[in-house]
Amino acid sequence: MRVLLTNDDGINSPGLHALWERVREVADVVVVAPATEQSAVGHAITLSSPLRIEEVRRDGSVYGYAVNGTPADCVKIAISTFLKETPDIVVSGINLGPNTGTNVIYSGTVSAATEGTILGIPSMAVSLTTFTDPHYDYAAKLAGRLVTAIHEHGLPDSTLLNVNVPNVTEDKIAGIRITRQGKSKFKEFFDKRIDPKGGTYYWLAGDMVDADKSDDCDHAAIRSNFVSITPLHYDMTNAGAIEEIQSWNL
Amino acid sequence: MRVLLTNDDGINSPGLHALWERVREVADVVVVAPATEQSAVGHAITLSSPLRIEEVRRDGSVYGYAVNGTPADCVKIAISTFLKETPDIVVSGINLGPNTGTNVIYSGTVSAATEGTILGIPSMAVSLTTFTDPHYDYAAKLAGRLVTAIHEHGLPDSTLLNVNVPNVTEDKIAGIRITRQGKSKFKEFFDKRIDPKGGTYYWLAGDMVDADKSDDCDHAAIRSNFVSITPLHYDMTNAGAIEEIQSWNL
Repeated sequence: MRVLLTNDDGINSPGLHALWERVREVADVVVVAPATEQSAVGHAITLSSPLRIEEVRRDGSVYGYAVNGTPADCVKIAISTFLKETPDIVVSGINLGPNTGTNVIYSGTVSAATEGTILGIPSMAVSLTTFTDPHYDYAAKLAGRLVTAIHEHGLPDSTLLNVNVPNVTEDKIAGIRITRQGKSKFKEFFDKRIDPKGGTYYWLAGDMVDADKSDDCDHAAIRSNFVSITPLHYDMTNAGAIEEIQSWNL
Repeated sequence: MRVLLTNDDGINSPGLHALWERVREVADVVVVAPATEQSAVGHAITLSSPLRIEEVRRDGSVYGYAVNGTPADCVKIAISTFLKETPDIVVSGINLGPNTGTNVIYSGTVSAATEGTILGIPSMAVSLTTFTDPHYDYAAKLAGRLVTAIHEHGLPDSTLLNVNVPNVTEDKIAGIRITRQGKSKFKEFFDKRIDPKGGTYYWLAGDMVDADKSDDCDHAAIRSNFVSITPLHYDMTNAGAIEEIQSWNL
């Protein structure tokens, strides 16, 4: 089994390294990841500048390949150009921070797995639901298990798994829930500042608001120390709205 | 009625100007758009650099405001910081090129409308399905009509309209179809080149492949000179796959 590993925090991220250590216990792995942090790039791809690939060594041997692009670029270029064989599975992560609720559409981590899915490869995104003091051990171990499960079962057509793992030790994990994407979103504001030349500039800031109180969503699982696994697809059609818009008789 | 206009081709794009001319016949408009082209940025937002807003004048009066960010940034910052009143509708476009099929998830044009929707404002993306010799007249006129229709009917919860218009004159338009997002995708390759210093670099290139032969998808409408209007939402859950993944008994 061959697994392509990528992420959005950049090739030097400890989360990616934790994933690499565990997944190579069950598969041949190759790392192709952004050279620099690419958080919140969504499904951006690079059209107006060229991409370059650089070998990255670690402890004296080849660790992977850094691309000066987005997570989606990494998956595209790895599969289209320099991997000799198409990987069986794409795994993106381990992301520092949750990718739940509305957050999913901004996520570079998820977009890499979406890109793998578009290219016909079973794919999974893995995130640790903390921004501070991360403990990757259990999330990495679980990723290894899930890679084996995906290889055994396959994934439904055009569907990826979005995995969010609570930042606790294994004995505190309550279990695994298959969830739906929740409605929780960021409550944002812009911090307005003045630069040394008197110009105005703005920083985007904000916090996740736990707005979705339903039991079956991603955020609810995490809140109760369950791992959340959400099957996602990239068909954004709201089929239930077609009839309503048709009734407008445009 | 107040309408916020934005796009991903940048504030100086003729498609945005065509939209501005028609929509201001039916509403008070304000333009807040990227300072430079932002195609294929998906739902990227800017977290690691500050945003700035610059007034843009045209023919001696204020035309709009340019932001050094992505389409989603423009919608966020307009609504959160400097618009005195929340707009009634957000319109993104007119994009040069189709936003149909898998293309939708890479689209900055669509992401601006998605962002408006997340912020609770009825929103619409408008694209002209050509990359060359664009005729914006009918698409702009239709956008004006649709703004009025959205204001009258409202939109279903968390739903935006993704409008694609064939590049023909009004008399050649066969009608309007309410469609679903198709499965057509780009067939891509990387063009490998050598720079003057001997370094290797890659350009992403490719063409849209009309892979979805069903009658009810966006691409099918366009192919028959119909306007395609697809209701989209940002819940990517593949609800039909939840039971299957549950049966894995993880």
